[in-house]
Amino acid sequence: MEKPKVAILMGSKSDAEKIKPAVDTLNDLQIPCAVRVMSAHRTPAKVAEFAGNAEAEGIQVLIAAAGMAAHLAGVVAAHTMLPVIGIPVQGGALNGLDALLATVQMPGGIPVGTTAIGGAGAKNAALLAARIIALQDKELRQRLQKDRENQEDSVSQADQSLQQELGL
Amino acid sequence: MEKPKVAILMGSKSDAEKIKPAVDTLNDLQIPCAVRVMSAHRTPAKVAEFAGNAEAEGIQVLIAAAGMAAHLAGVVAAHTMLPVIGIPVQGGALNGLDALLATVQMPGGIPVGTTAIGGAGAKNAALLAARIIALQDKELRQRLQKDRENQEDSVSQADQSLQQELGL
Amino acid sequence: MEKPKVAILMGSKSDAEKIKPAVDTLNDLQIPCAVRVMSAHRTPAKVAEFAGNAEAEGIQVLIAAAGMAAHLAGVVAAHTMLPVIGIPVQGGALNGLDALLATVQMPGGIPVGTTAIGGAGAKNAALLAARIIALQDKELRQRLQKDRENQEDSVSQADQSLQQELGL
Amino acid sequence: MEKPKVAILMGSKSDAEKIKPAVDTLNDLQIPCAVRVMSAHRTPAKVAEFAGNAEAEGIQVLIAAAGMAAHLAGVVAAHTMLPVIGIPVQGGALNGLDALLATVQMPGGIPVGTTAIGGAGAKNAALLAARIIALQDKELRQRLQKDRENQEDSVSQADQSLQQELGL
Amino acid sequence: MEKPKVAILMGSKSDAEKIKPAVDTLNDLQIPCAVRVMSAHRTPAKVAEFAGNAEAEGIQVLIAAAGMAAHLAGVVAAHTMLPVIGIPVQGGALNGLDALLATVQMPGGIPVGTTAIGGAGAKNAALLAARIIALQDKELRQRLQKDRENQEDSVSQADQSLQQELGL
Amino acid sequence: MEKPKVAILMGSKSDAEKIKPAVDTLNDLQIPCAVRVMSAHRTPAKVAEFAGNAEAEGIQVLIAAAGMAAHLAGVVAAHTMLPVIGIPVQGGALNGLDALLATVQMPGGIPVGTTAIGGAGAKNAALLAARIIALQDKELRQRLQKDRENQEDSVSQADQSLQQELGL
Amino acid sequence: MEKPKVAILMGSKSDAEKIKPAVDTLNDLQIPCAVRVMSAHRTPAKVAEFAGNAEAEGIQVLIAAAGMAAHLAGVVAAHTMLPVIGIPVQGGALNGLDALLATVQMPGGIPVGTTAIGGAGAKNAALLAARIIALQDKELRQRLQKDRENQEDSVSQADQSLQQELGL
Amino acid sequence: MEKPKVAILMGSKSDAEKIKPAVDTLNDLQIPCAVRVMSAHRTPAKVAEFAGNAEAEGIQVLIAAAGMAAHLAGVVAAHTMLPVIGIPVQGGALNGLDALLATVQMPGGIPVGTTAIGGAGAKNAALLAARIIALQDKELRQRLQKDRENQEDSVSQADQSLQQELGL
Repeated sequence: MEKPKVAILMGSKSDAEKIKPAVDTLNDLQIPCAVRVMSAHRTPAKVAEFAGNAEAEGIQVLIAAAGMAAHLAGVVAAHTMLPVIGIPVQGGALNGLDALLATVQMPGGIPVGTTAIGGAGAKNAALLAARIIALQDKELRQRLQKDRENQEDSVSQADQSLQQELGL
Repeated sequence: MEKPKVAILMGSKSDAEKIKPAVDTLNDLQIPCAVRVMSAHRTPAKVAEFAGNAEAEGIQVLIAAAGMAAHLAGVVAAHTMLPVIGIPVQGGALNGLDALLATVQMPGGIPVGTTAIGGAGAKNAALLAARIIALQDKELRQRLQKDRENQEDSVSQADQSLQQELGL
Repeated sequence: MEKPKVAILMGSKSDAEKIKPAVDTLNDLQIPCAVRVMSAHRTPAKVAEFAGNAEAEGIQVLIAAAGMAAHLAGVVAAHTMLPVIGIPVQGGALNGLDALLATVQMPGGIPVGTTAIGGAGAKNAALLAARIIALQDKELRQRLQKDRENQEDSVSQADQSLQQELGL
Repeated sequence: MEKPKVAILMGSKSDAEKIKPAVDTLNDLQIPCAVRVMSAHRTPAKVAEFAGNAEAEGIQVLIAAAGMAAHLAGVVAAHTMLPVIGIPVQGGALNGLDALLATVQMPGGIPVGTTAIGGAGAKNAALLAARIIALQDKELRQRLQKDRENQEDSVSQADQSLQQELGL
Repeated sequence: MEKPKVAILMGSKSDAEKIKPAVDTLNDLQIPCAVRVMSAHRTPAKVAEFAGNAEAEGIQVLIAAAGMAAHLAGVVAAHTMLPVIGIPVQGGALNGLDALLATVQMPGGIPVGTTAIGGAGAKNAALLAARIIALQDKELRQRLQKDRENQEDSVSQADQSLQQELGL
Repeated sequence: MEKPKVAILMGSKSDAEKIKPAVDTLNDLQIPCAVRVMSAHRTPAKVAEFAGNAEAEGIQVLIAAAGMAAHLAGVVAAHTMLPVIGIPVQGGALNGLDALLATVQMPGGIPVGTTAIGGAGAKNAALLAARIIALQDKELRQRLQKDRENQEDSVSQADQSLQQELGL
Repeated sequence: MEKPKVAILMGSKSDAEKIKPAVDTLNDLQIPCAVRVMSAHRTPAKVAEFAGNAEAEGIQVLIAAAGMAAHLAGVVAAHTMLPVIGIPVQGGALNGLDALLATVQMPGGIPVGTTAIGGAGAKNAALLAARIIALQDKELRQRLQKDRENQEDSVSQADQSLQQELGL
Repeated sequence: MEKPKVAILMGSKSDAEKIKPAVDTLNDLQIPCAVRVMSAHRTPAKVAEFAGNAEAEGIQVLIAAAGMAAHLAGVVAAHTMLPVIGIPVQGGALNGLDALLATVQMPGGIPVGTTAIGGAGAKNAALLAARIIALQDKELRQRLQKDRENQEDSVSQADQSLQQELGL
């Protein structure tokens, strides 16, 4: 198996289903990735160690997904010089608003690029990682272009099928 | 100087003014305290080390104050077995709502007792720390009782002075 | 049965299921606790009496859980010198945001340490109570340490089982 | 001086300025009122006693104004059978949203009629009290009618003066 | 049938189920009430007429329940001198937060006493109306007192039954 | 003076300054307009009458601006078949969020097209009214086109002046 | 088939069900409409082209519905001089609050008239479009009047049927 | 002057002051950047053209800053394959909450990495861009490391100076 270029960390295994669009998108784009469960609160030393070693291990982008008082992305960003992307995970009484604010409102100095709450954010975190890696990988750049065109086609097809359903 | 029983950590020295009611209240109650600037994001190792050593140093309660995506209290709580109190600090575009959610919405396992945003929260964090320490300190327990009675008196005086102002 | 060291008060018996993680955690940590239904609004005298007597009864920490305009923790804190922990209970149209603000935004003078809305907050309220009591109870301190290590182990196991499921 | 028919309680003397429109409106309508500073948290026994005696003292409506985790109106309503009106007071980091939710989201059984945050709410609390008392007081009913007509006139005058300013 | 003393208006018949606790509570307290469907937007003339005539018809309190941009209570209050109570109805994407703000944030001059969103608010609207009417009705005053005591009893019973379930 | 084609209603003369961009924009586009102070709550009959007569008076679009529990646009829309545009006015403790929800969340049947809170919304309300009227007025259509081009030019000029300031 | 006078654009075919009340209302009012799937993000060129050509194609009003960071209405408004109505679509973790703010808070210069989140907003978008077109179409004006009267009738019928159900 | 590797776009020149920390940070890190004023709404063609050409011009990262219904980052991301970072700009009645949601809640397919509202977000956007470019630039990687160490030093100095001020 190829060495991972992206690592996806999640704070709890119960988030795995919500993070799946990130894994699927990276797989579709043929970007090897690691997927790990690590908690900023329950296993902080492991997070610090993993984030600290990621660059040496050949990781280029770190994606961190967590819910509620979501500290994972911020903690990861504090222990690496790699670009870090945060996915706020939906869950609990506030439905991800807490995770969004706890991920995106990072004070100046330690950057996290945050995507939308939940599945759309997971997909876009993978796409943003891919755009970053594609700066040095022309074939990936072409696969991204192809994915983009597929998006356009699928919207056009949806448009046509709606016309038919409506009999217009 | 007596060894501190409470440590107040703040994420940025710019929060010092907002945290002052906590320091003042501990001083009034004659509880020796340390006051330190440490950032969960910019100096994570120092926070982990300080929190990890606090119990051995004789600290009994840790108070952590931070703004925006306020991770400090959670990170502290992850590195100690001592009770941790979090003060969300007002600031930035969302005026402390982000700090409140990032402090209070901790996932199960790592507890933080959160007080109100800003100065009232700072005062109450100190009082909560005092109530905890007073479980083993009868004289402090009496000073707390006295403070509580003073509060009642000052409300009564405010009531009387309002009556006079209104001519009732 | 041992005399309770922690009392958990809830505003309505319908909250019992949401508060269960607090009871379970205290049981696991072998901390004897009382669990009572009392309403700040419907039985205010009983709340005042219970809170006022708690210290003399040997209670060391009071936990109060309520929903909507959740006044229970604040009222309890007004009638005791013991540390009080508030759990905002999810429910009603605003899903616990009202309970969170009504519990955490206490004005200066009467401290309440608030945990997260709902089940995670219930578990953490018990853990925070345990950390407070452990300041005087070395065996409890060790059980807390063990619980903390178990958390780390269970994250590691989740990580490994995810690796297997993903075939990594 | 006539015996008060309305009592306005405020949690802190610092709220007096914000509550002034309530006092002024009651004065304008010639409804004798008491204005008191009492805190649900700092002087709970005094609040319980005042609310409990109000009916016997001839009070017909109780108005309670408080900020942050505003429990005053709810506590008052728990200790009386009189109608209670709550005014959420603006202040602190959340600017009265906390006070609004803590006042209006009362659980079923103990009713509080809540008005708007701040000065408009203070004025309307007095007007609502007046409408309640006017059910038994025809002269007050006429003064209220007059006040209502004055409002219409002042809107019409504002309309005319705007026309002149705009040269329309 | 006795002439109604309270009228409950709702903006849409689909709100009837949510308003039921108001109707039930008035029935339990033997307060005759009218229950009507009228829309501030779709039948504004009917609302204006009903509100304008209510006092002459012997109505003493008007309760208005509506969802989303809930204008009903405000419109009613604009056309009567009677006390008006507003119930924000849960529904739509914002789950009643819109209805709460549209009901409670009335500008100065036209008072509405607002209760909680949904069922608890419906029950409390009826109880507040009852407290208002009870100012002139000693028997109702006693029934209210009895209801209050029943609330206390039911909390005590819930407390006891919880003790039994927990084996405490 | 030409007969007005647009009427701008505001709930209070104190909103006049915030509504000014609407008046200025209509003047710039040479669309004659009426500007009136009328309150949905304090002068409901006048609002109903004005809205009901507007079509016969030659008005083509009604713009209504109000703050807090902003009912004006909805009430206007209930009394006319003309297109109605609502401007939520900033003010009070919630800074216009209440006005936004009370204006935009209209239940199905009575349409209001809502623009942004405050000055930007006022300008856009005028522009939307102009786009509606321009469907039948080619010269206005050209003036709108010109305004649109001016916007582009002013952005380009801002871009160039920024380049100069930065020395790029 | 008649040439469409209104075009309804939606960002994703999955929104079709939520937009249906708009289509149904336009059909009921006999206003020919186009219904298209186009994405501001995935097919921006197509949106720009469609919006740019709409006026020449005889379209008089454009309705755009989108969820989350809902840019569709704003982008459409940027490419046309026609009136544009935006419908925020419910969906995702924030339930349409994001779509509402992203649609309504347009900066000055490019106007969008926004309706409520979801189905009520879809219906009202169609009615607002109809009111705009009716300025030049007397028969449509009559159909709108008839729809308005039907609304009144259906409220009255709901009122009567509620009376019967309640046995009043 | 070196060819820019990062382009910072802002929707209005009035945002320039708020975006300054991004420009300053890039300058400090010796990353050549373009700074442009372009509006997603007022100059959409220019934005599409600039974003479409950026990659060919040697730009590696695009930063887009906008307020209110902030569409700029999303529109830019729709027209390029480069990584795009969005800064929500504080301003207007909702103080940047609208800009945050309109920037971060992008639907799946078109990724934007969002940073905090306002100045902290501007600084972090530059740092995130730097981390991305540093993947291919070892000297920049070292400058980033140095900046990170400077942050630690400045926190330590703040800590020491606080100790001195407090006389601890």
